[in-house]
Amino acid sequence: MSAVPLKTIDQSRPQQERVVTVLGATGSIGDSTMDLLRRGRDRYRVAAVTANSNVDALAKLAREFEVEYAAIADPTRFDDLKAALSGTGIACGAGEVAVIEAAARPSDWVMAAVSGAAGLKPALAAVDRGATVALANKECLVCAGEIFMQRALAAGAQVLPADSEHNALFQALSSGNREELTRVIITASGGPFRTWSVEQIEQATLEQALKHPNWSMGQKITIDSASMMNKGLEVIEAAHLFALSPDEIDVLVHPQSIIHGMVEFSDRSVVAQLGAPDMRTPIAHCLGWPDRIPGPAARLDLAAIGQLTFEVPDLKRFPGLRLAFEALRTGGGAPTVYNAANEIAVAAFVDRKIKFGMIARLVEATIETAVSNGSAKAPTTADDALAIDHNARNIAATLLPQIAAKAS
Amino acid sequence: MSAVPLKTIDQSRPQQERVVTVLGATGSIGDSTMDLLRRGRDRYRVAAVTANSNVDALAKLAREFEVEYAAIADPTRFDDLKAALSGTGIACGAGEVAVIEAAARPSDWVMAAVSGAAGLKPALAAVDRGATVALANKECLVCAGEIFMQRALAAGAQVLPADSEHNALFQALSSGNREELTRVIITASGGPFRTWSVEQIEQATLEQALKHPNWSMGQKITIDSASMMNKGLEVIEAAHLFALSPDEIDVLVHPQSIIHGMVEFSDRSVVAQLGAPDMRTPIAHCLGWPDRIPGPAARLDLAAIGQLTFEVPDLKRFPGLRLAFEALRTGGGAPTVYNAANEIAVAAFVDRKIKFGMIARLVEATIETAVSNGSAKAPTTADDALAIDHNARNIAATLLPQIAAKAS
Repeated sequence: MSAVPLKTIDQSRPQQERVVTVLGATGSIGDSTMDLLRRGRDRYRVAAVTANSNVDALAKLAREFEVEYAAIADPTRFDDLKAALSGTGIACGAGEVAVIEAAARPSDWVMAAVSGAAGLKPALAAVDRGATVALANKECLVCAGEIFMQRALAAGAQVLPADSEHNALFQALSSGNREELTRVIITASGGPFRTWSVEQIEQATLEQALKHPNWSMGQKITIDSASMMNKGLEVIEAAHLFALSPDEIDVLVHPQSIIHGMVEFSDRSVVAQLGAPDMRTPIAHCLGWPDRIPGPAARLDLAAIGQLTFEVPDLKRFPGLRLAFEALRTGGGAPTVYNAANEIAVAAFVDRKIKFGMIARLVEATIETAVSNGSAKAPTTADDALAIDHNARNIAATLLPQIAAKAS
Repeated sequence: MSAVPLKTIDQSRPQQERVVTVLGATGSIGDSTMDLLRRGRDRYRVAAVTANSNVDALAKLAREFEVEYAAIADPTRFDDLKAALSGTGIACGAGEVAVIEAAARPSDWVMAAVSGAAGLKPALAAVDRGATVALANKECLVCAGEIFMQRALAAGAQVLPADSEHNALFQALSSGNREELTRVIITASGGPFRTWSVEQIEQATLEQALKHPNWSMGQKITIDSASMMNKGLEVIEAAHLFALSPDEIDVLVHPQSIIHGMVEFSDRSVVAQLGAPDMRTPIAHCLGWPDRIPGPAARLDLAAIGQLTFEVPDLKRFPGLRLAFEALRTGGGAPTVYNAANEIAVAAFVDRKIKFGMIARLVEATIETAVSNGSAKAPTTADDALAIDHNARNIAATLLPQIAAKAS
């Protein structure tokens, strides 16, 4: 007890085992989650794990954590998974339905880390049963933000943002009431092209785009970081998570990636969350919430880092960020189209079909087309959202040759 | 309502007028407090104000805010105050007893900003009646930390730290439970001598010591900032406010004074409070607590600031900081002696009796003497604490000529 009114652990809350589900257990976020669960074996029981296609890694985790159920998204890998788990008594399944089944099975806490549009329905299955869902899949918010948040609210599910930036905002927001927020500030490393000219960015190669200065991540997200499309997606996510208008969201380039997010309150206090760039910190925050658990990341040593720098993002050199704010203002299905078109554009860039600078142009052209032909209306169901996504991909694929031809 | 579990304003709490008392209303903190109260005239009613000796300023505030009671600490100014308030119906008093009376009169919230040892008893009078006390007087914690915090706890008073650094820690601490704290980091501007050599600091003049890079403050605190004694006092205050051991407190030099304080939690998250250097932000936080009120400070513009830098403090060049940690480890009355000796040393420096470098030497010698002669035992009452303070001042005054002679 202290005369300073501090939060303390609610000792009346029973300290029971937390039953968890990890959707996307073999990816980068899954790895970090399993690492934390491994360090807290006495506190957690893993009910179910899923993976996209890596049967070996999935089976290994399923055995290690003695899960009840394992699901592989690739329907052709059912027999392999069954064989890999033979003799363990672990139930298993394959295909989209099996992943949803894994999400729907009872547990207290779910890590929703299936990447891409495939992550939407499993995450919805988890929120629909009122679970606490650590959200690492961006499509839930970008493609179906209102639907997702509404369904979570209706079911009494709690959504915890697992992304480092949104988790930082979530942590900072606990220093005040939501009504007292005046803006949030999402930081961006600026990526490998932070100091490059428009012309240099236009011609950037795949190898150059894959060199992220701070975070070790998957290929798609690394390219999105280079184009700042990733930050644009995070702006859209933040808008849905915290019910923010575009005007309440600022992006600040901060190359050291130490301050992950900030919230400005009405009294002009800015509360920030900082930490070494290690996804295990925000995931540990979600896993421990509403308490905190020990985290394995390195302790922050600001004196060793020496300096933190800040710049206003340049929307001319990084049009992908501008497009996100525009999509958010356009509303309806525009953010979904933004995301879908970007996926097609990045895939084309990875296949060396288009130059780096064309990614944003394809996204912009796709949004224009989708809005003008009426295929970017607000989705009312998850299937609606997926249809908008699907349709936008088709538009982008159709526009791709023209865009590629125009620029060469 | 949001599916992300955010704090929201408790609408069931009645939004009634807050009755406030401002002890030390004409000083720097008092000015900022009155400015905030002026901006929120409809929300606050000022019950009582006090000042040390500035009758004119006190009477002006008393009339402006139509207070019930005004007290001047200087007992010789009673007639002047009475004359200045004639015809207003405002009751008034003079002397220590009158300031305590002002603190003891009913109100919801008290700003305890009387400076020096004279601030202890009025602040105790406020906590003893269970008020919410915004604490800006350091002696309450440095000289009588355990007594003060115990009495606040016993009376159900809530102590809110009004100092920018401690307020930052308080804000950051609301992002987690007290038990999950792994350390706090108090930032220090480093003062005007941050980059100076030991020899240069030794010979620094009064004019040089009064040039603080970021904050506009009183003379004593500005000199304490130059010697980092101020940071040492803040370390001691933090230890009492948040029940921290010396090992849980780090000091980090941060010349821009934008990050005011940080808390590291067990999951390796570091939560910080940032803001423009304007005392009205932490005071507004205390005034609004548990909600937040609009603050008049400039919005933080990190891109305009460009960079934030950090250094480990150099305890060789700034022995005053080292002495604070040692005093805290020694315990008992040692922190009181540290503070008292520093006051004597600074007064001697201001009177140009000793060189800047001798401030810390006089403090160190005084602590050694007080500890060895048994006059630095733990105080059990406020009078005990004041006696230790008084005695330490005598020791310091006695040692002063020797220290001055040795160094010249």
